[in-house]
This record gives sequence, structure tokens and C-alpha cells, in this order.
Amino acid sequence: MVRLVDLVRLLNGDPSGDLNTPIYGAASLADATGGDITFAAEAKYFEQVQATQAAAIIVPRDFPELKIPAIRVSAPRLAWAKVLEVFAPEECIPLGIHQTAWVGADTLMGKDVSVQAHAYIGERVKLGDRVVVHPGAYIGDDVEIGADTVIYANVVIRERVRIGCRCILHPGVVLGSDGFGFVTTSQGHYKVPHIGTVLVEDDVEIGANTTVDRGTTGVTRIGRGTKIDNLVQVGHNVQIGCNCLIVAFVGIAGSSVLQDGVTMAGQSGVAGHLTIGENSVVMSRGLVAGDMPARSVVSGFPARPHTENMRILAEERRLPVLRKTVNAMQKQLDKALTDSENTASDVRQLEERLASLERAIDRKGNLAGREGI
Amino acid sequence: MVRLVDLVRLLNGDPSGDLNTPIYGAASLADATGGDITFAAEAKYFEQVQATQAAAIIVPRDFPELKIPAIRVSAPRLAWAKVLEVFAPEECIPLGIHQTAWVGADTLMGKDVSVQAHAYIGERVKLGDRVVVHPGAYIGDDVEIGADTVIYANVVIRERVRIGCRCILHPGVVLGSDGFGFVTTSQGHYKVPHIGTVLVEDDVEIGANTTVDRGTTGVTRIGRGTKIDNLVQVGHNVQIGCNCLIVAFVGIAGSSVLQDGVTMAGQSGVAGHLTIGENSVVMSRGLVAGDMPARSVVSGFPARPHTENMRILAEERRLPVLRKTVNAMQKQLDKALTDSENTASDVRQLEERLASLERAIDRKGNLAGREGI
Amino acid sequence: MVRLVDLVRLLNGDPSGDLNTPIYGAASLADATGGDITFAAEAKYFEQVQATQAAAIIVPRDFPELKIPAIRVSAPRLAWAKVLEVFAPEECIPLGIHQTAWVGADTLMGKDVSVQAHAYIGERVKLGDRVVVHPGAYIGDDVEIGADTVIYANVVIRERVRIGCRCILHPGVVLGSDGFGFVTTSQGHYKVPHIGTVLVEDDVEIGANTTVDRGTTGVTRIGRGTKIDNLVQVGHNVQIGCNCLIVAFVGIAGSSVLQDGVTMAGQSGVAGHLTIGENSVVMSRGLVAGDMPARSVVSGFPARPHTENMRILAEERRLPVLRKTVNAMQKQLDKALTDSENTASDVRQLEERLASLERAIDRKGNLAGREGI
Repeated sequence: MVRLVDLVRLLNGDPSGDLNTPIYGAASLADATGGDITFAAEAKYFEQVQATQAAAIIVPRDFPELKIPAIRVSAPRLAWAKVLEVFAPEECIPLGIHQTAWVGADTLMGKDVSVQAHAYIGERVKLGDRVVVHPGAYIGDDVEIGADTVIYANVVIRERVRIGCRCILHPGVVLGSDGFGFVTTSQGHYKVPHIGTVLVEDDVEIGANTTVDRGTTGVTRIGRGTKIDNLVQVGHNVQIGCNCLIVAFVGIAGSSVLQDGVTMAGQSGVAGHLTIGENSVVMSRGLVAGDMPARSVVSGFPARPHTENMRILAEERRLPVLRKTVNAMQKQLDKALTDSENTASDVRQLEERLASLERAIDRKGNLAGREGI
Repeated sequence: MVRLVDLVRLLNGDPSGDLNTPIYGAASLADATGGDITFAAEAKYFEQVQATQAAAIIVPRDFPELKIPAIRVSAPRLAWAKVLEVFAPEECIPLGIHQTAWVGADTLMGKDVSVQAHAYIGERVKLGDRVVVHPGAYIGDDVEIGADTVIYANVVIRERVRIGCRCILHPGVVLGSDGFGFVTTSQGHYKVPHIGTVLVEDDVEIGANTTVDRGTTGVTRIGRGTKIDNLVQVGHNVQIGCNCLIVAFVGIAGSSVLQDGVTMAGQSGVAGHLTIGENSVVMSRGLVAGDMPARSVVSGFPARPHTENMRILAEERRLPVLRKTVNAMQKQLDKALTDSENTASDVRQLEERLASLERAIDRKGNLAGREGI
Repeated sequence: MVRLVDLVRLLNGDPSGDLNTPIYGAASLADATGGDITFAAEAKYFEQVQATQAAAIIVPRDFPELKIPAIRVSAPRLAWAKVLEVFAPEECIPLGIHQTAWVGADTLMGKDVSVQAHAYIGERVKLGDRVVVHPGAYIGDDVEIGADTVIYANVVIRERVRIGCRCILHPGVVLGSDGFGFVTTSQGHYKVPHIGTVLVEDDVEIGANTTVDRGTTGVTRIGRGTKIDNLVQVGHNVQIGCNCLIVAFVGIAGSSVLQDGVTMAGQSGVAGHLTIGENSVVMSRGLVAGDMPARSVVSGFPARPHTENMRILAEERRLPVLRKTVNAMQKQLDKALTDSENTASDVRQLEERLASLERAIDRKGNLAGREGI
């Protein structure tokens, strides 16, 4: 339990209501009960805020007035993350090497390392201070892992992979599997050995069951601060820059480059040997099939500027109407052509009649100076 | 070995042929040999049925007459599932805790539990009667698992997750990994702690290497009787109702709601914070980008009513023809405009000639009462 | 270290430069330094070749003249694969059964088998000569694995699966999980037992975290020499022929058939119960929704001949322009119709005036033989 005042100090926020309000937990607007604190990131949630059972709330500084105790902050989402840290259930990390773990020869371990049940550590592995290796994880020979990195259960890190500090590898992640490289011959697909490795820089998070292949030669690199979701595939020799966000089911084919700050939304992809410029965004399902300049925002198949793609999608939706329009126009056009022909024919007849009339009158010799009119 | 009569009784079916026919196994129409029983779900398989080597067959009640012994039933697919149960190879489940398994303190185990080799059970875990934990599976602290649930090899269930009775978690499933939640600041992506959990209700089946993230706060819920295929991603705080069917490579983004009976076909997806109404169907590759009412049937990107999408796809296929039509129309139109101009010009000339003629006649003074005609 | 001459002999190539050049490693054009050999598969890399720091290079026979020692070969990619084999770091495979591994009764092991830490081998398993089972892998009862096959860490192979010789299963692969088969009844989805198995033939490679379901009855088959990438889903009773290539995120639904030599590119898929003819190619994201003849090359949703799909995609991109064209045509058409009506009206007036004139003249009796003109 904390008091509201403790959170006010933590968040450097602007309080209203009873500073002594006891807070026992954190929950969403809908789920919060009695002793919970909750949060609303934007004014549009005002209705739900009125209905919440929470004891207190975190809101943006310009949020309308509230009946319950509140903390007004400049960055409510960031404040909420910090409140969740306060209420996160304490984890009990057993220090040392579990009796059922296996640790190979010549391994170097930092202070307060945790190697848990059935974990496997190969030979010549280096684990930094406070590294946690959860049960069933596999760390191959010559792997290096920086301080404060957490390896969850059943992760597989193959030989020679290097991982930075403060990384989080969620359960089932595979780092350093062979790339998908073959030379097709008349005898079948000849395997290209993958003698490179994977380099994961500091502060990277990789989601459950995501796979990262090692380089054919050289490294597959995941840059500092990049966050990868579950079930993502990173091909051999891919170079991902810093602070990228890669969402579930993204496939990045071999040797492609994501510069810093690129976002790839769910189920999107990029073909091989391409470059996506910094701070670009590939929307959901976008399939990048050519190089993209910095700050591109693309979607569709193949990916094109998002606004252009939206226009094309809108036109697609209107295709049945367009076809009707064209069909109707065809009918009008046919009518116009028929009418025009009929009219032309009428005109020809008139001309004949007129010419006949002119000749008739001319022939009578009754008219004079007609050309001069 | 069973006799045909045994299966007739099991299925409450209508037999024809020798009731004493011995049945040694079950196989498909094409694969069945000597002692096998096979099945045909519909009359359209009649040709293959004629060619089968099977000793007997299960068919719908209205199937044409057959030469081999048969059992006619109202629901042949369900009958077939029950026959397969009869011929399923017996599994030998070793009861008790394997000598290489690790079980934490204060764990509560029901009757006839099986905890197999290298399995890891955390502290304060509750396992119901007859729960089976296959080799290498990881069950975190404070997890609760209901009776008769089967956890296959190398599954990872993180702390505090709750699972109902009669569930099946296939190999490599990850339940309770952190959701993909970050607050982007000028210093990088700040991790949002995920202090919630996952709730899997009774009779749920989850396919190999599927991942289900825990709630930020509260739970990610998978409702009773829902079946999930391999390699599916369920985001944090997703709420899946009862009896849903979710096929491989489906991605369900954070906080979305699938009401009861929703089907999501292969490689489809739903964006975050949306609701799909009960008994809706998202066809293969459909990407749901807005709320959907109950009993929707949608497909496409973004997902729209399936019939509309089919019409749009058909129009897309006809686009090259449409363009040709439009180009031809443009030519016709150009011609029509030219013709029309020419005709108008002809008409103007005629008018001039006519006017001249009228004036000429008028000027002669030969006409009388012309206005009166 | 090797000498250039050693590689010349290995590759049966045509050398230039100092045959005694020492080679210490292999690296890409961009990464190669001092003692490395590198390679250029095509003449288009000539610029990068000029800039490389490599000590020597492998190039096609017709490559332009070079300053550094070179080996000219007919198949540079294949040569490169063989060079990488030379420089692959030596792997140390511990023979025998690790003290923490578990091996069930009645298992038959060939010569020089390696069963590593925390591996699990069920009962009646057969492992061929030199099979390697890495840490944490699970091999179920009655599984058979051919000589020289490598099973990486945390792979799960369920009971009765059969695997050929020289296969490679990357970390996290799941073979033999139940297929996604249910009979929907008023009480919910009734599970169809999967009593079949999986057959993996010789020389197959399967990527990390890929899943292959067992047959309902009979087998799910992966043919000799087929290579499968990471995170692929192969449904129950799928039949994959020989020498296929299946890239990441491909989904192959139940009972579909890929004949020999089929390539499925990334994120593509095939619906159930279909056949893709031999040597066909499904391009990235293609979704096969009908049978495909041999040597098809298809893309799109639903998949159609690639050239047709490219034309349709091109038309889609031009839709906004097409709409503008149609809108402009509509205006022109409206104008044409109005003009045509006006002209027709003018013609009618002229006709009246002309008729009046004709009548007037007629009535005067001044004309003779008019019809004869």
C-alpha cells in the first residue's frame, strides 16, 4: 500500500483531493475497484472516468475537473508505466546456479547471476552482473550476455551470439539459427553454411517465439533500444537500427536494413536487400518491395505512400459504382453516337433539299446578287 | 480389434453388411486397406468410395447403396471422430513426479498428476487431478491448472496464469509473456510493466508455438471451448469469448474483443481496441480495422462484408478490361464530339444558306401569308 | 589458414594472382579485411569489388580483370558455400548420452550418437548413426531418426514421427502436434483425434519455431530435399514433395499437396485440399485458393498468374487517374449529349423552315419537275 502523496512525489504531478488516500493497486478504468488507482490518457475518456470505481486517477494536466482524488501530469502514459512499476508483484529471483542447471567449462559469471533449473550454459560463456537465465533456456558456447539482461524460459541462444545489457528475451525466442540460404543445383538445394552470428545491442526486448537468424558471414544486428514483438522473423544479415518497433508477424528478409526509429506494424514485411530510411513507418500488412527514403509512411502491397494507398483503397471500394458509371456512360455514348449519326443524316437530307431548292430558284433566274448577301 | 457391431452400438447407427466384420484400424478413403474402417462425409465422394479397399465405411444416412459393410449415421464427421478415439494408439502417461523434474515449494497437486522429465513447477502452483505436464514444460509461480488439462513438451506458462479444466496446450505454447507496450520518449521506448495475467477457461485448446500475452493490468481471457491453432498471437488484454475458432497466423492486437462463436481464418487479423460481434467470421487474410456487428462475415483489407469484397475483387480482376473499355470510349467520345462539332458547323452553314434563301425569296416579294403556314 | 591454391583445387577454379596468398577467413565484399577471401556472384558488383579490402576473391569466369588474386568458377554461389564450409568454426559435439539427459527403455542408438544435456528420449526410439540431439530437445516414444540428422535445442518431436537421414531441425521446431480439426456441435467444438503421424524424408531442413501437425490418419509428409524456413505452419495431412522451398510465415492448410520443386515465398499461403503442380512458384503474400497446374507462377489474393496480377496491381495504382478520366469523360459526354440535342433541335427548326420554304415555293406554282432534280 502507498499513499497518494507518494505517487505525487514519484510522478512530480499536480494533486487534487485527499493526499492521504491509500492506494493498494492499479487497474484500468473499467476494472478498478475500491483501493485502485487508474488512469485516463485523454479527455475523450471523461465519461468512463465519471463511472470508475477507482480511489484515484492519473490524468493529463488539462483534464476536466474531477470528484475523485487525481494526479495531473504532463505525460500520463509514462506516469502510468511508473505507477505499474510500483504495483508490480515482487519477483523472487533465486541467485546462483540451480542444482539441475548445466554450466560448461570456462564460463565467466558476474555478480548475482541467476541460472535456474534445467538451464544450459555452454563453454566459454560470459554472463554479466545480475543476468537471469530462466528454466530450460539454452545458451550456446562462446555466447556473451551483458549485465541485467533477462533470458526467459526455453529461450535458445546459439553459439557465439552477443547480447547487450538490460535486454529482455521472452520465452521461446531463438537467436542465431542458420539463415535460409541454399544454392539450387541439379542435385537439389545445397546448404550455404552460416558462419556469422547475431549481435543484440543494449536495451533490446524480443517477444515470445520470435526468431533471429545468424549472418551468413558477419552479423545480424539488432540496434540499441529496439523492441520486437512476438512471432517476428528476422532474416540473416538483417541490420536493424536503434529504437525501432517491430510488431507481431513481421518478416524481414535477408540483408535488409532498417535505419533508426523505423516502425513496422503487425503482419507487415520487407523483401531482401532493401533499405528503409530512418523514422519510417510501415503500416499493418504493408509489404516493402523497394528502398524507402527517411520518414516514409507506407502501406499496401506493394507498399506505397500511405495517403496514396488510402486513395487507391477508396477507389477499389468504389469500383462497382465506377463500373456502373462506365456502363451507363457507354449507353449514353452509344445513344449520343446514334443520335449524332441520325442528326448528321438529317442534315445531309436537309442539305440535299436545300441544294435542290437553291438550284430550283437559281434555274428560274429570278434571283440576283445572291453571292453578295 | 473391434467388430462392426461394436461401432454400430457406439455410433447408434444404421448398419448394412456383415456385423461381425473385424475392424483393425481407421484410415482415409485413399489409404484404407484390408481391415480398416473409413468414412465419407458426403455423397460427392461416391466414386472414391467405390474404389476404396476399406473393410467397412461410415456414411450419411442418405448415401447411395454400397457393396461393403456400412454404418449410416446422422452426423458422419462426429461419428468419425468417435471412431478415431477407438483406434487412437494408447498413450502411456507415467504418474507422479519424474526424478529429473523440479517442483517448487507449497505446490498443491491433485490425484494422478503426471509431472514428467525436466519439467519445472514453480512455487505455490496448483495442479488439478490428472493434470499432465510433459517434459521440459515450465509452470511459473502461483499458476493454477484445472483437472484433466494436458501441457505438452516445452510449453511455458508464466507466473500467476490460470488455466481451466480439460485444456490442451500444444508444444511450445507461451502463456503470460509481457504485452508489447511502450511509451515513446525522447530517451527511447519506456517499458510498460505488465502486471496482469492470462485466464484460460475450461475446454480450451491452444496450438503449437502460439503466444498469449498477459494483461497490462487485469487479464487476457480465452473463453470456454475456444480452439486456437498453431502460431497465433493474442495481444495483451484481448478478450476472446466462448467457442471461438482461431486459425494459424492470426494476430489479435491489444485490448480487442472477440465475442462468443467468432471464427478467424488463417492469416487474418484484428487491430487493437475493437470488438467483433458474436458468431462473426473473418475470412482468410481479412484485416478487421473497425468494430463489427454480430454475425458479420467479412474479408479483405480492410475487412468489409464478404459479398462486397468478392464483388470488389471481381472488379479488380476486370480492371484491365475496364481500362480498355474506357480507352475505347474515350476514342468514341472524341469522335462523337468531333462529329457533333462538324454537324453543328454543317447546320450553321445550312442555316445561313437557308436564311439567305428565305431573304432572297422575301426580297422578291413573291410570297404571301408565310407566317400563317 | 589455407593457401589460395588449396581453394583453387577445392573449387576446380581458374586462378589469377599469387597462389600462395594466405587466407584466414571468409567475409562479404563490404566486411572483408586483410586475410579474408570474398566473393562477387555477378559483374554488377564490380564497383564494390574494386573497393574491397579482401586478400582474394571468387568471381564468375567472365568477370572483368582484377588487381587482387582471384578464383574464377562456373558457379560462384556454390563455390562460396564450399569456401564457407572451410572456414566454419569447428563445432565440438560431445558424443554419448549426457548425464542430465533422460533416455527411455528399449531405445536403439547408432554409432557416435550425441544426446546432450536435459534432452529427453522416449521409449522404443531409434536414433541412426551420428544423430545429434541438442539440449532440451524432446523425442517422443517410437520416434525414428535417420543417420546424421541434427536436432537443435528445445525441438519437440512427438510420438511415432519418422525422420530421415541428414535432416536439420532448428531450435523450437514442433513436429507431430495435433492438427486443427473439430466437429462443431450444439455443445461446442468436438475434438477430432489425430492418430496419424509425420514423415520427414532425407535431407530436409526445417527452420526455427516452425510447426508441422500430424495426420488425422495417415501421414503429413515432407519430401526429400525440401527446405523450410522459420515460423512456417504445415497443417495435418499436407503432402509436400521433394526439393520444395518454403519461406517464413507460409501457412499450408490441411490436406493440401505441393508437388516436387514448389517454391512458396514469404507470408504466402494455400487453402486446404488443394494441389500445387510441380515446379510452381507462389510469390510473396500469394494466397492459393484453387488447384494450380505445374510450373504456375502466381501472386496476389486470391493467387492468379503473376503477370496478370502485376497488370491488375498496375491498374489499381492508376485507379485515381482512371476515375479522373471517367469524370472528365462524363462531363464531355454530358456536353456532347447537350450539344447533340441542341443540334437536333436546330435541325428540326431548319427542317421546318425549309419545309415552309418548299411549300411556299410549291404553292406559287413557279417550279417544274422538282422531283426530277
